Amino acid sequence: MKKVVLAFSGGLDTSFCAIYLSKVKNLEVHAVTVNTGGFSTEEIQEIEAKALSLGAKSFVCLDETDNYYQNCIKYLIFGNILKNNTYPLSVSAERVYQATSIANYAKKLGAEYIAHGSTGAGNDQVRFDMIFNILAPKIEIITPIRDLKLSREAEIDFLKEHGVEMNFEKAKYSINKGLWGTSVGGKETLTSHGYLPEESFPTQLTKNAPENLTLIFEKGELVGINEETFASPVNAIQRLQEIAAPFGIGRDIHVGDTIIGIKGRVGFEASAPIITIKAHHLLEKHTLSKWQLFLKEQLSAYYGSWLHEGQFFEPAMRNIEAFLGQTQETVNGKVFVTLLPYRFVLNGIESENDLMSAKFGSYGEMNNTWSGEDVKGFSKIFGNNVAIFHQVNNTFSAE
Amino acid sequence: MKKVVLAFSGGLDTSFCAIYLSKVKNLEVHAVTVNTGGFSTEEIQEIEAKALSLGAKSFVCLDETDNYYQNCIKYLIFGNILKNNTYPLSVSAERVYQATSIANYAKKLGAEYIAHGSTGAGNDQVRFDMIFNILAPKIEIITPIRDLKLSREAEIDFLKEHGVEMNFEKAKYSINKGLWGTSVGGKETLTSHGYLPEESFPTQLTKNAPENLTLIFEKGELVGINEETFASPVNAIQRLQEIAAPFGIGRDIHVGDTIIGIKGRVGFEASAPIITIKAHHLLEKHTLSKWQLFLKEQLSAYYGSWLHEGQFFEPAMRNIEAFLGQTQETVNGKVFVTLLPYRFVLNGIESENDLMSAKFGSYGEMNNTWSGEDVKGFSKIFGNNVAIFHQVNNTFSAE
Amino acid sequence: MKKVVLAFSGGLDTSFCAIYLSKVKNLEVHAVTVNTGGFSTEEIQEIEAKALSLGAKSFVCLDETDNYYQNCIKYLIFGNILKNNTYPLSVSAERVYQATSIANYAKKLGAEYIAHGSTGAGNDQVRFDMIFNILAPKIEIITPIRDLKLSREAEIDFLKEHGVEMNFEKAKYSINKGLWGTSVGGKETLTSHGYLPEESFPTQLTKNAPENLTLIFEKGELVGINEETFASPVNAIQRLQEIAAPFGIGRDIHVGDTIIGIKGRVGFEASAPIITIKAHHLLEKHTLSKWQLFLKEQLSAYYGSWLHEGQFFEPAMRNIEAFLGQTQETVNGKVFVTLLPYRFVLNGIESENDLMSAKFGSYGEMNNTWSGEDVKGFSKIFGNNVAIFHQVNNTFSAE
Amino acid sequence: MKKVVLAFSGGLDTSFCAIYLSKVKNLEVHAVTVNTGGFSTEEIQEIEAKALSLGAKSFVCLDETDNYYQNCIKYLIFGNILKNNTYPLSVSAERVYQATSIANYAKKLGAEYIAHGSTGAGNDQVRFDMIFNILAPKIEIITPIRDLKLSREAEIDFLKEHGVEMNFEKAKYSINKGLWGTSVGGKETLTSHGYLPEESFPTQLTKNAPENLTLIFEKGELVGINEETFASPVNAIQRLQEIAAPFGIGRDIHVGDTIIGIKGRVGFEASAPIITIKAHHLLEKHTLSKWQLFLKEQLSAYYGSWLHEGQFFEPAMRNIEAFLGQTQETVNGKVFVTLLPYRFVLNGIESENDLMSAKFGSYGEMNNTWSGEDVKGFSKIFGNNVAIFHQVNNTFSAE
Repeated sequence: MKKVVLAFSGGLDTSFCAIYLSKVKNLEVHAVTVNTGGFSTEEIQEIEAKALSLGAKSFVCLDETDNYYQNCIKYLIFGNILKNNTYPLSVSAERVYQATSIANYAKKLGAEYIAHGSTGAGNDQVRFDMIFNILAPKIEIITPIRDLKLSREAEIDFLKEHGVEMNFEKAKYSINKGLWGTSVGGKETLTSHGYLPEESFPTQLTKNAPENLTLIFEKGELVGINEETFASPVNAIQRLQEIAAPFGIGRDIHVGDTIIGIKGRVGFEASAPIITIKAHHLLEKHTLSKWQLFLKEQLSAYYGSWLHEGQFFEPAMRNIEAFLGQTQETVNGKVFVTLLPYRFVLNGIESENDLMSAKFGSYGEMNNTWSGEDVKGFSKIFGNNVAIFHQVNNTFSAE
Repeated sequence: MKKVVLAFSGGLDTSFCAIYLSKVKNLEVHAVTVNTGGFSTEEIQEIEAKALSLGAKSFVCLDETDNYYQNCIKYLIFGNILKNNTYPLSVSAERVYQATSIANYAKKLGAEYIAHGSTGAGNDQVRFDMIFNILAPKIEIITPIRDLKLSREAEIDFLKEHGVEMNFEKAKYSINKGLWGTSVGGKETLTSHGYLPEESFPTQLTKNAPENLTLIFEKGELVGINEETFASPVNAIQRLQEIAAPFGIGRDIHVGDTIIGIKGRVGFEASAPIITIKAHHLLEKHTLSKWQLFLKEQLSAYYGSWLHEGQFFEPAMRNIEAFLGQTQETVNGKVFVTLLPYRFVLNGIESENDLMSAKFGSYGEMNNTWSGEDVKGFSKIFGNNVAIFHQVNNTFSAE
Repeated sequence: MKKVVLAFSGGLDTSFCAIYLSKVKNLEVHAVTVNTGGFSTEEIQEIEAKALSLGAKSFVCLDETDNYYQNCIKYLIFGNILKNNTYPLSVSAERVYQATSIANYAKKLGAEYIAHGSTGAGNDQVRFDMIFNILAPKIEIITPIRDLKLSREAEIDFLKEHGVEMNFEKAKYSINKGLWGTSVGGKETLTSHGYLPEESFPTQLTKNAPENLTLIFEKGELVGINEETFASPVNAIQRLQEIAAPFGIGRDIHVGDTIIGIKGRVGFEASAPIITIKAHHLLEKHTLSKWQLFLKEQLSAYYGSWLHEGQFFEPAMRNIEAFLGQTQETVNGKVFVTLLPYRFVLNGIESENDLMSAKFGSYGEMNNTWSGEDVKGFSKIFGNNVAIFHQVNNTFSAE
Repeated sequence: MKKVVLAFSGGLDTSFCAIYLSKVKNLEVHAVTVNTGGFSTEEIQEIEAKALSLGAKSFVCLDETDNYYQNCIKYLIFGNILKNNTYPLSVSAERVYQATSIANYAKKLGAEYIAHGSTGAGNDQVRFDMIFNILAPKIEIITPIRDLKLSREAEIDFLKEHGVEMNFEKAKYSINKGLWGTSVGGKETLTSHGYLPEESFPTQLTKNAPENLTLIFEKGELVGINEETFASPVNAIQRLQEIAAPFGIGRDIHVGDTIIGIKGRVGFEASAPIITIKAHHLLEKHTLSKWQLFLKEQLSAYYGSWLHEGQFFEPAMRNIEAFLGQTQETVNGKVFVTLLPYRFVLNGIESENDLMSAKFGSYGEMNNTWSGEDVKGFSKIFGNNVAIFHQVNNTFSAE
């Protein structure tokens, strides 16, 4: 019996696939769920039970949270990456990482097929296809929902025929939860003008009193909050999420280009990602040179776009990571934040690497390192080439 | 008697210059104030009276608000330019424009000198020096405060000796008001960690109830608010400022590199600029291609940096403007905004140029234009080069 | 009878298509050849005769040379675009333009199909498919060779069966001739190490004596050579090609990424394009600011890549053209060139817009505009931020 | 007696400085010459004798050739850096490295001053000033020639008065020789139109017969030529220079922006640098992804500009080096070159990392990895966003 590794979430599409692959295609189904920080133990147990009940020969949950942080999220923080200046790439990054983990598992298992439940309409199919092709070029990909062009109703009918009993009702809002944020899709995000209602967001507002936080960064990574230090930045991010989410912070709607060329909208709630990135960026403004800030921004735009488009294994990604990693040597210190309902304020920072050090002169105050004469000379030379340009070309009247 | 044009604000430094140039240097002082949207008629009248009382032979107020918008602010909106992702360049842009206007006035007047009251410690001296050198290379620049290295106390003594009576008390917060935002400096901004107190901001919170606005853009320019259309985008911006400022929207502290190489912090309140830019950017996400968005961001980073550093006449600035202007053809439509205390929400947009049109398929839903098969082929080819790279280099184990 | 517009070159593939579409598919075949400067009148007449003899109902040759120059080549010159610093994009640009012309013709004719003879192995299929999809989304594309996966032998057999007599021998080197260069492919270019033999290049070396030329540019366009001025830059380019090709100038092998993700090599001979671009670039070094040169280079890299990949209608292309066009205002003057066997030397330039004007000081000689003191001040301030960075971070030992 | 470290070349300017600092300023002069590959043992001995005869208390020659290669030249090769697409930055890079070496020596010696012989007219003063300020902020800089505004004649008179006998005749062409090329300045380079005469170049044409070379690269570094392997890439570069210079290869005139804002021209002969860079680049075209090539080019433009402007210690330079270094992992193999009089031909390459591997399909030939159907799907999706853009905006007529 040939083995197929099935990326399994327990939803309608992958439930269909489990039955279809085992019963219709007669394959030995090995279901796999990748946890990138979004699943609780209970959720995993439920998924496992479901997989086995749907005919899977085996089930594993691969916990990739730490790898995911180390190989991906870390660089999204280093790069202050918010796609279209808004979205922390919550789902895009996660999918890439899940696909990687699944491909490696399939190779280890000696599987002949990998199956995923994508339809033909979204980004995820491209991410999964491409990463499987790259990491496991000899394993064939099966996509039953896409290939059979099945409607939701047809899938339900098929499952019922095979005796499956589950909740077939479509959730009003589709939710995808992960370490780097929770996405929210619903009828409003299918339009260009609608905003998501309060109740659609996973965490409801329960904190109202302002709360001060000190975030501690070492070489660009979040390692402590207030008095607490953490075994891993993953724990720090999770702790920050617990503290900040009840303020309703980090919600927005992202509008962007899908890999397949249409525009799409998706809501999200990403308290810890947004606060972490904004605090990290502020610390960088104090500790990096202007050109480091400039180039980081330009390169990060590529990094974010390629990650979004599933191009995580483009070799230039490793080169950008080398660049970004090297910039973080001096990104150390504390960032002072105040959390408030639906917003937060960055009060300031404290760092041994702070370039805004009073000993080199405060802005607007004279100091001993240079003089007004020096600046006069600077202005003359700094503007020299432009002055010459306009004189040669008589851009401005002489009088 | 030789003529000097003096950039005059009525503050301590330029008051000193007025007396010093007329009385000590025996020059014919022509005081000039450039209004870029920050002065009321009363304020101008006060400045005029002061200038004449301090020995100026003449005073003019050059109203450059419309030119300033047309030649500069417009492109800051087109480029969604927020320096270091925060600051709308309120003062940087204004100074450049004031310097331009003064240089042209001095040439028209046939002046032999231009004087400005800059010290040797800030950005403005570089902006003024460079722009005067470029536009009026034959006119000599005089900077009494910088050259004499005068302390505040020495200036006050000098003025008192010359019989000047004015309020010599230093304001707790230094404020610079303009069309594109008001800057706020004080003891907190001289540190890296302090946040500005509520009372230091020019507009106090007086609105609490959420307020919905519809902003109307034509070719990237703000032309209407709700039912109201405006003779000029300048009026629309000013109206938006009136509506939004009482919400305390658009406040923050900018941390950045000064032209002279040190880091500095400055607070600001810029309700209309921040809302306009964010709304404009959202509309662009719906109406521009991903590569237009990408390149606009990369080029705008240069535009903002150079403007900040007084390099407005760098010829590449005109080239970037041509690029940015050309992108705005399709940036038409309405943006729906909700104003709330200290924050605002962008609800969505409506546009005839909206690329997220349902007729080309909603994200996540199948349509008739392309099939799952097409996407399969796409994924194969789109990932081809990366797959080959890793196969040639044996990056991943075959099994 | 349904109409099909067939992109026709008279080669084996398109000859097959003509017969196949008319005889097997029973379509009314309207053959079209687009001349972008590569065909002589005789060649066109031969192609026409062949098309009609192969069952085409009509034949037209669309002369797009001037449009091609105005809308495409011109910007390749403005941008000094050599793909991978080598290849003037001879074929890439031409294909895009041909596809555009064919799509418009098919719409005008009310055709139901457009057919092209591409195989499934090259770049051209993507360029044709995409541009037809964009310009004529309602017209269906037919690609017999690709769809039937025909071998060369099968095509020949089919043609013989239908009584077609033509030279079926495969040329040793495949040649594509156009205004912007001639490409050469052969057995050497299928390897990574082989260089093309002398005889494979279309023009053989017949000039040995050095020849001096003066190229005259106006706003970045080649308008004259020596004493001769031309009705259009197209004529100037053609004249330059006549003069320079017998020197064997402008030959090389391009190695690059195809649209479909593999690397490929192609030889070319492009005397006029290479000389024009290099001369134009030299003139720009004298007449543009350093930042104009810098940004032009960065943007042109995108322009070249997208054109190569058939993304001519990406709206960002129009934005880049606006940028590039705006830079050329001051690119006027003469460039002095010496032609020699297989190479040329750029001797220098003469221009009213030359920024290297002696009146602003020669390099290395003092002048009256600024002093050594000014430069001292400049050095101090220009290096200030970096000095502070290393002092704060104790990068270098104090002693 | 206070110590001054004098950057000493033995030319007129630094000879003046030696006497002036020791005799007039009564300082203890420690002369230092930095060898970055341009000096022979004999030349150094001559310089030493001269320094001591001119009153220097000590003389050292600091040999920095290897460090220079490791910390600077290597990255110029990795980045294929030719300023304005022409100039290998021969002098710019060298000056920066010499200044670094001198500053460190002065700190070790406990000197109170560093002196250099720059005039107020060139780039070198800025490079020296900035790097001394950064590396040795507590040591004062002395620049006698710049400060005294001395003419050549005045310097000669002064030296004669102090009994110095040397050849005071000005060389017709000023030459600066280093590992990374020799610069040539003369009366022609002071104009925009003149080309340097044959005899002004340091190496005359003595080889005419074509010569084939195999250059061997490991991780981007030149490690072998033909059968010979080298202890260090420095030796390989020097050997290549010996082989290629007699062909007159690598000559040109660079036109560019000086740091002080004017345009300047300089001739150069740089056989080994030009061949090394072009061969390295060709190898990269075969072994790097298209996006690696793209980003390398964009980042290298910054690297080259900053190095040219003396900003070697800008921290972003280290970040770019991390990026560039990381790209070179796969840049291994042989490049086949033919040397000819005044030119060379790159015939091709051979590499285990060659991405143009026949096993993934030759360009233009079908293969088993993907099909024409796949490419059809790709074309559809790849052009989707652009097609939608034009349909929404009705750019093209429907008919």
